[in-house]
Amino acid sequence: MLKNDPLEQWDRDIFLHPSTHLAEFARGNVPQRIVTGGKGSHITDRNGNRLLDGFAGLYCVNVGYGRQEIAEAIADQARELSYYHAYVGHGTEASVTLAKMVLDRAPDHMSKVYFGLGGSDANETNIKLIWYYNNIRGLPEKKKIISRWRGYHGSGLMTGSLTGLHLFHKKFDLPMAQVLHTEAPYYYGRPKGEMTEEEFSAWCASELEAMIEREGPETIAAFWAEPVLGTGGIVPPPKGYWEKIQAVLEKYDILLVADEVVTGFGRLGSMMGSDHYGLKPDLITIAKGLTSAYAPLSGSIVSDKVWKVLEQGADELGPLGHGWTYSAHPIGAAAGVANLKLIDELGLIENAATVGRYLNDRMRETLGDHPNVGEIRGEGMLCAVELTADRSTRAAPDAGDKVTQRAVGHLLENGIIARAMPQAEIIGFAPPFCLTQDEADEIVEKTARAVNEVFGSGTSPRPATGPGADDVTR
Amino acid sequence: MLKNDPLEQWDRDIFLHPSTHLAEFARGNVPQRIVTGGKGSHITDRNGNRLLDGFAGLYCVNVGYGRQEIAEAIADQARELSYYHAYVGHGTEASVTLAKMVLDRAPDHMSKVYFGLGGSDANETNIKLIWYYNNIRGLPEKKKIISRWRGYHGSGLMTGSLTGLHLFHKKFDLPMAQVLHTEAPYYYGRPKGEMTEEEFSAWCASELEAMIEREGPETIAAFWAEPVLGTGGIVPPPKGYWEKIQAVLEKYDILLVADEVVTGFGRLGSMMGSDHYGLKPDLITIAKGLTSAYAPLSGSIVSDKVWKVLEQGADELGPLGHGWTYSAHPIGAAAGVANLKLIDELGLIENAATVGRYLNDRMRETLGDHPNVGEIRGEGMLCAVELTADRSTRAAPDAGDKVTQRAVGHLLENGIIARAMPQAEIIGFAPPFCLTQDEADEIVEKTARAVNEVFGSGTSPRPATGPGADDVTR
Ligand SMILES: Cc1ncc(COP(=O)(O)O)c(C=O)c1O
Ligand SMILES: Cc1ncc(COP(=O)(O)O)c(C=O)c1O
Repeated sequence: MLKNDPLEQWDRDIFLHPSTHLAEFARGNVPQRIVTGGKGSHITDRNGNRLLDGFAGLYCVNVGYGRQEIAEAIADQARELSYYHAYVGHGTEASVTLAKMVLDRAPDHMSKVYFGLGGSDANETNIKLIWYYNNIRGLPEKKKIISRWRGYHGSGLMTGSLTGLHLFHKKFDLPMAQVLHTEAPYYYGRPKGEMTEEEFSAWCASELEAMIEREGPETIAAFWAEPVLGTGGIVPPPKGYWEKIQAVLEKYDILLVADEVVTGFGRLGSMMGSDHYGLKPDLITIAKGLTSAYAPLSGSIVSDKVWKVLEQGADELGPLGHGWTYSAHPIGAAAGVANLKLIDELGLIENAATVGRYLNDRMRETLGDHPNVGEIRGEGMLCAVELTADRSTRAAPDAGDKVTQRAVGHLLENGIIARAMPQAEIIGFAPPFCLTQDEADEIVEKTARAVNEVFGSGTSPRPATGPGADDVTR
Repeated sequence: MLKNDPLEQWDRDIFLHPSTHLAEFARGNVPQRIVTGGKGSHITDRNGNRLLDGFAGLYCVNVGYGRQEIAEAIADQARELSYYHAYVGHGTEASVTLAKMVLDRAPDHMSKVYFGLGGSDANETNIKLIWYYNNIRGLPEKKKIISRWRGYHGSGLMTGSLTGLHLFHKKFDLPMAQVLHTEAPYYYGRPKGEMTEEEFSAWCASELEAMIEREGPETIAAFWAEPVLGTGGIVPPPKGYWEKIQAVLEKYDILLVADEVVTGFGRLGSMMGSDHYGLKPDLITIAKGLTSAYAPLSGSIVSDKVWKVLEQGADELGPLGHGWTYSAHPIGAAAGVANLKLIDELGLIENAATVGRYLNDRMRETLGDHPNVGEIRGEGMLCAVELTADRSTRAAPDAGDKVTQRAVGHLLENGIIARAMPQAEIIGFAPPFCLTQDEADEIVEKTARAVNEVFGSGTSPRPATGPGADDVTR
């Protein structure tokens, strides 16, 4: 398609894309897509393609694309007051209103809200609050943080350290020394028949306890976890997991940070993942679902227990030396207020629960017995299809066959965006909450075709998406 | 003033403000201000106050408040496409266009642009790129970063470590081990008559060199600096400083990162601080001025030298494991495009140069000989008034007298927002570029009154702004 401007060329020449093969992109050897619009579950690009976004951006456009209610709220705020800072007691009507709305939706024992920009910086804020907390409590040694292999908590130096995926560590000298990783709650990943699900949960808890004992409980400040493992494979917790883990944390006076960047505000078919699974976190990290990505905004929700110590710290030390210029940015706050209202008004969390269950059920009916499907799992509007060379042994497919990348490439050719999750062979889906049953059917049907294509003939073509285009988290 | 909603109370009860005395704020003992609108150089609050914002938010609202051109660009983008991610070769028309506009305004040897959200995360990206760079070059030991005392580079764990102000380290266990601090280029802070300005610059360079030799040049990756020291006191570089510093960096193969979060896009009365002072940075950090804060957006501008190694790294390792969900957010990008256009169309950089010089000249004429003013300095639309107990000795005022806080409080009572810079007695001004001569006159006149009031009678009241309200960076 011919165009009158050199936008595509500028993109190749100048623009450093995240998680992209920079050299091949610059050379024009991997695909480029300039997205121009969207409506509901679909996006459109500059070449006129229309795609069903089965991953809602990066599981963040929860209310779907093109919501004019949010666009107009952003427009009104921009016209009235695009920016003022939140330092030293300053605020805006939008940001204070949103703080109230967030707290109304958070577990009962939470008491304050701090606003940042993205999930990574909100986790960064939480690390700072925790170190401060233990300094104020007179426990300067208690600083190490335990997160989980396969966890995803961001891409900064410390937050990328919390992340437990090799891709994000390699050549960046991560993880940094203050972070340790314990077992992923990834039952499927264990040898089949080794232990029951409950035994596995108990084992995860005992591994955590062993690590704490080994390091010394007086050195461990916090445990960081997503209620449902997200980027690490879309893995709901195994039975009994959270109960057993929380007992260990309580025993050793270790804070629990629930990273609800993905699960917060409806993704699981309920408001917060913490309530969904009976977690009592000391801090909660939020981002994506807070604004459905219509504008950047993240947050830290602080429990009353942590707040009490922050209060004491202020009385001892004065103002907290922490802040981003764009903390509580009014445009993000206005988007957040409109987004949370829209979710309520349209009953989108209910839809996420209902259609999410339908999607998972239909996926299981259609592919659950496929010889190359090891597991289908999900919760709310999350669904994962884990591929295997052999269902009976759960043997991993040959890495060189790139089965997941090829399946995702096949889906894309057929108009569906899915995601090849890193460090395993997992096709991930996290559609907008407004997904219809028909759209769910389309996803299932095309996924089945893709899986059959990849494993069926062995002659399926290499993905049109090319190298590096397979996994948006790389 | 009575209102029908509990917004003020929610704010006290729920909202964690950055850099605020959290306990006193929650108790209602320090002021609160809910900002509702703005136009040009003025903001208005919920109680009907109208204030001349002599600090442009946090030196970021460069084009001034209420610019409908930017508001409408944001509105249009929100209606069309509020969000799509930039991972794996995806982009939007706004973000690619902005990348081109940024590169057109950057020094000639720069070649690529990566977009983030705020200044802190852009510095974080740059640290990651530098560690990756030296790993790809086969120099895994070359990782330490030198920044300067009194520098400000953010509030994260690593970026707060780069920051050289105690407030941001205290009780957060910062700086982290990978960061070292060298001398601030703060000539005024040296004993009077100790050395000439040029000698001081040479001394700064030799201190830097001594540190490099002490640590081992093979361990030092980068030097991080603002072209003009900002939050650390609004200090233009002493004569000969950048020439001498850059010679040292070159000698030891150490990258220069120019943090242009404040200086980028016009604050100094020219497009970029690097060109203004003849810097040849390897990486440039941008934020604030990129969008005039109308929406969050930051960036890393990458030189051709660094790009070449990133390219090699991609060929060896594949996609870069780095990215934020909101990298290159379309709303921020649309704001950036409209902002940079408006700056050009209205000749705002010229105005920053002209009125900025006028402001500095008038301030010098009016207060330059005041017995309690040690120095007045500035560049472009930046101006600092440094207070002293005694002009002839430059003795610091008694800290307990809080002269700067009181002067800033006095200014605020008289309708002017100024900033008490941390860790010294400095009144800082960084007005919007659209400041008029009349407004500059008003700032100067009221500053003179405030300084006279504070030092004159000794009976001036404590500031109405209360404890913790004095310094927006705390
Ligand atoms: C659970 C979780 N936490 C944190 C993050 C980081 O958020 P951001 O990319 O906005 O920095 C993500 C991003 O995918 C996430 O999934
Ligand atoms: C020079 C400089 N760099 C970085 C930052 C950090 O930017 P942000 O507050 O957007 O994270 C600031 C903020 O004032 C700054 O002045």
